[in-house]
Amino acid sequence: MDYEKIVTEMAAVIPTLENCGKVASYIPELGGIDAEKFGLHLTTVGNQNYGLGDAGERFSIQSISKVMALVLAFELEEEALWQRVGVEPSGTHFNSLVQLEYEKGVPRNPFINAGALVVCDILVSRLKQPKQQFLEFVRGIAGNQEIDYCQRVAESEKSTGFKNAAMINLMKSYGNIHNDIDTVLDLYFNLCSIEMSCRELAQQFLFLAANGVDPLSGRAVISPGKSKRLNAIMQLCGFYDEAGEFAYRVGLPGKSGVGGGIIAIHPGNYSIAVWSPRLNAKGNSYRGIRILEFLTTRTTSSIF
Amino acid sequence: MDYEKIVTEMAAVIPTLENCGKVASYIPELGGIDAEKFGLHLTTVGNQNYGLGDAGERFSIQSISKVMALVLAFELEEEALWQRVGVEPSGTHFNSLVQLEYEKGVPRNPFINAGALVVCDILVSRLKQPKQQFLEFVRGIAGNQEIDYCQRVAESEKSTGFKNAAMINLMKSYGNIHNDIDTVLDLYFNLCSIEMSCRELAQQFLFLAANGVDPLSGRAVISPGKSKRLNAIMQLCGFYDEAGEFAYRVGLPGKSGVGGGIIAIHPGNYSIAVWSPRLNAKGNSYRGIRILEFLTTRTTSSIF
Amino acid sequence: MDYEKIVTEMAAVIPTLENCGKVASYIPELGGIDAEKFGLHLTTVGNQNYGLGDAGERFSIQSISKVMALVLAFELEEEALWQRVGVEPSGTHFNSLVQLEYEKGVPRNPFINAGALVVCDILVSRLKQPKQQFLEFVRGIAGNQEIDYCQRVAESEKSTGFKNAAMINLMKSYGNIHNDIDTVLDLYFNLCSIEMSCRELAQQFLFLAANGVDPLSGRAVISPGKSKRLNAIMQLCGFYDEAGEFAYRVGLPGKSGVGGGIIAIHPGNYSIAVWSPRLNAKGNSYRGIRILEFLTTRTTSSIF
Amino acid sequence: MDYEKIVTEMAAVIPTLENCGKVASYIPELGGIDAEKFGLHLTTVGNQNYGLGDAGERFSIQSISKVMALVLAFELEEEALWQRVGVEPSGTHFNSLVQLEYEKGVPRNPFINAGALVVCDILVSRLKQPKQQFLEFVRGIAGNQEIDYCQRVAESEKSTGFKNAAMINLMKSYGNIHNDIDTVLDLYFNLCSIEMSCRELAQQFLFLAANGVDPLSGRAVISPGKSKRLNAIMQLCGFYDEAGEFAYRVGLPGKSGVGGGIIAIHPGNYSIAVWSPRLNAKGNSYRGIRILEFLTTRTTSSIF
Repeated sequence: MDYEKIVTEMAAVIPTLENCGKVASYIPELGGIDAEKFGLHLTTVGNQNYGLGDAGERFSIQSISKVMALVLAFELEEEALWQRVGVEPSGTHFNSLVQLEYEKGVPRNPFINAGALVVCDILVSRLKQPKQQFLEFVRGIAGNQEIDYCQRVAESEKSTGFKNAAMINLMKSYGNIHNDIDTVLDLYFNLCSIEMSCRELAQQFLFLAANGVDPLSGRAVISPGKSKRLNAIMQLCGFYDEAGEFAYRVGLPGKSGVGGGIIAIHPGNYSIAVWSPRLNAKGNSYRGIRILEFLTTRTTSSIF
Repeated sequence: MDYEKIVTEMAAVIPTLENCGKVASYIPELGGIDAEKFGLHLTTVGNQNYGLGDAGERFSIQSISKVMALVLAFELEEEALWQRVGVEPSGTHFNSLVQLEYEKGVPRNPFINAGALVVCDILVSRLKQPKQQFLEFVRGIAGNQEIDYCQRVAESEKSTGFKNAAMINLMKSYGNIHNDIDTVLDLYFNLCSIEMSCRELAQQFLFLAANGVDPLSGRAVISPGKSKRLNAIMQLCGFYDEAGEFAYRVGLPGKSGVGGGIIAIHPGNYSIAVWSPRLNAKGNSYRGIRILEFLTTRTTSSIF
Repeated sequence: MDYEKIVTEMAAVIPTLENCGKVASYIPELGGIDAEKFGLHLTTVGNQNYGLGDAGERFSIQSISKVMALVLAFELEEEALWQRVGVEPSGTHFNSLVQLEYEKGVPRNPFINAGALVVCDILVSRLKQPKQQFLEFVRGIAGNQEIDYCQRVAESEKSTGFKNAAMINLMKSYGNIHNDIDTVLDLYFNLCSIEMSCRELAQQFLFLAANGVDPLSGRAVISPGKSKRLNAIMQLCGFYDEAGEFAYRVGLPGKSGVGGGIIAIHPGNYSIAVWSPRLNAKGNSYRGIRILEFLTTRTTSSIF
Repeated sequence: MDYEKIVTEMAAVIPTLENCGKVASYIPELGGIDAEKFGLHLTTVGNQNYGLGDAGERFSIQSISKVMALVLAFELEEEALWQRVGVEPSGTHFNSLVQLEYEKGVPRNPFINAGALVVCDILVSRLKQPKQQFLEFVRGIAGNQEIDYCQRVAESEKSTGFKNAAMINLMKSYGNIHNDIDTVLDLYFNLCSIEMSCRELAQQFLFLAANGVDPLSGRAVISPGKSKRLNAIMQLCGFYDEAGEFAYRVGLPGKSGVGGGIIAIHPGNYSIAVWSPRLNAKGNSYRGIRILEFLTTRTTSSIF
């Protein structure tokens, strides 16, 4: 694939894309973002880098950090993990308690909020200083000590996070949360508050395009088999109840956040991060999906 | 990939696989099958062919034919199609009316029964002799005039198909079925009754591994973009509420049938059909999934 | 209670009642009714009669006839009846298939459509000429040979009744329908088409106010114990998902129909029928409930 | 009704009743109860009293106190009350979050846990010292200063009450809880912990059999209209998803608790309390329902 060419084409297309949808506004820290922001960064497994727009500006990555939490939990507790959380698409809205109740406290997958809370519970069980150690894990892969939680965002989420509190209490009633609820919620709200730029995200997740090995540092973050499985989970569950639509239109494994960010992986080839704060009705970045659809359609390069 | 080698390894592994689960028995024609049958056939885009066991024996392909029905409907009525059926995983058991009612008669995807009924309704609207023309479409791609419906199976399905009748009536109450209910059901039960062997299936679906072009005849069955989209739908929706598990373990787009068959696609490389009649709790071939998991794990060759 | 006085008060109040809501219009025969019609008839167990407005005009009693169907089935097959249908409020909209699927084809109660279809199935099993014999049963209690089905209404219902067809097929898939689907649906659509006036309705149901004995003829229609149980079922399930609201506001057992009719019973005292075609959002007569609320509030005479 | 005679008959029948079901055991304080306990007390509006068995022994009345909480909230905040909680039967298990989510945080009725939590929230808003003032309200009607919370039970409930915490958090996410969650939960767990005997219960609730006026003290606890409405709500919603069965078999408004107690009202005639700790599958006292069914069947004296 001629990356130079397609990135140039994308640069030309971006200004023509409609910018629909609404910026997430349930906390003031997200609602105050400039809705016209747009960043994109593509990193190839051969370490070619292509950035566009606000690719260097940090934003709240929100649920994208659930992938990193899963990577770490997958390393720490492979066996019990899949007894406590599934790998199936949820089929319902990302915050739904309905399925959680019908399925007795076992979340459908690790990327819906309930599933990420179970992942956090595992991290709390396994790590002495979970907040600090998770941050070091992220910084280590990124090779960047500046990446950090945003305290204001974490506090804001906590003060409005009654639905997450409902879910973790429900799971605890079924025995699927082992630690103190407030400790787990604190980790959860913190990891959602991490701020990174598109460039940092693309480089952070490059190991999933390279069989688990970070091509920049040569570090094996995770085994090839696990890398494939993580991509499979992202493909099936990475976009809430729009996963099928994303696979149909874009055809890459990926994960979105309500901050307007998306990370997507082309195994063997590249990782790409986009950022555009307006969200569609399903809670995913409107322009982010459009530009990724342009990318894979124009180059006929979805994984399918 | 050294196909010779991996097929030889699979041949050695098959006898060691547990053969759990139950043969589908809601109609006598399926229940009477020898539960120990096992067939496998892999065809590469370069037309190398590898068969094992009962690869040449025909069996009831059941829901696998929903893929061919979708291919034909996708060609005939691209625009209206996706207003009438979604591309999202169902999140619930394949026969469920619950979601159909909540979502006002629009099925989640074309591979659950309700979705396939809508696809059949489109074929009835668009074709003068839908049963005959669908069969010719299948035979044409297969290059094989012997492929046929099984009248006994179709009749048996019809006489017990009250849940399908419930679903089509429910959808008609929402205006999402345009034709006479009995005509649509007749087409549906017939296409589920088609009998093919693993060899025939692998060759039939090879165009989905080759950007829509059948490598054997050179015929463009469908455009490259549609071929990718069909694979995406199979990846997300091809295994009922076990789609995530199949992606996690096997990592190939595919489709199963309650006759114990599975077709899977490795885009750019090969198609593979397996047949083993015992089904797991989710209604998919128990040994079929196991041998495909062995294939992609052993060769680290899932699409992810 | 001074019936004379309260009926006079009601006559004064009726013109002041708001007439909100919509006339049922899913079949032309119902949609064509004059929305301003209003009838009321109260019959005491001592055979005092008080009529107001259009009390003598026949209208489509619709679901009210489900009570008579249950009375007959209760006599014919007491034992099996309550294995096949429950006595609990549905908690969801009257046409819902959701609960029917979760509860494996056993309807919540005999007054939702699904439950009435099971009752009809019992009548078809037990009676040689179910349509004729049911009509004779109704006529016998009414002492009126003119009461009849309306063929046009029955045909109209049949041609649009896809949701009922969905439900009966779903129940048959669970084994809870024993007879041919079309035969049962034919009985069902016919009994919903019966036409009666408020006067005829009040007199028809008077036996439920008198421990099962029709005070006019002295005929024991049903035992005292069964009479109480039928009133209990009407109290809990007679107004779809507005049963609680009706108990709270009116406090009498009763049953409504989408034709705008309501029958209500004050055990030991009287039966009352009202008719006003506009329906509230729950499908019950808007003014009908208002005037009954006036009656029991003004006289502090609910059963509670 | 000859109370002397029927109570004598009941005394003879009790030893012959099967004692099925299980004692509630989710907290040790309930699980430790002698499963063979049986008490019954009937008080007529004319202040005749009939006790049997352990009628004088106090037990944990649990959800029965939700009726008293509703009585108090109904007095304090009639208007807003019914915007925040419905009067419809739940149709699902008493702890379900499903309906709560579908209906955006508005509980079906004040007797399911979620509804009682809203009632407690109202008490916290309206009362300066809600725990103390609620207790005084109960003691005042009972004319008995000894009635009290059981601290051990309240603490035990609190330490295992994750499902209640899930529900109140979910409702708060919809804006239907106005006060601090822990304060509301504390009141809720305390009022469920009240201990009373059958005699005390029957006398406490006698005002609901007498149009809101306590016949013993002459005190008007609540207006006649409200008294009828409270009875209606008990009839429709007092026994979780067994309300219909209770109306069918017993035919009295009432309320049960997981401690094995039941209070039932015959408006105009009597109140009756029974206690037998083994619960049926729906969470209601097994023998309690049986003896009440005997009472109303034997005397043909249900309210219907």
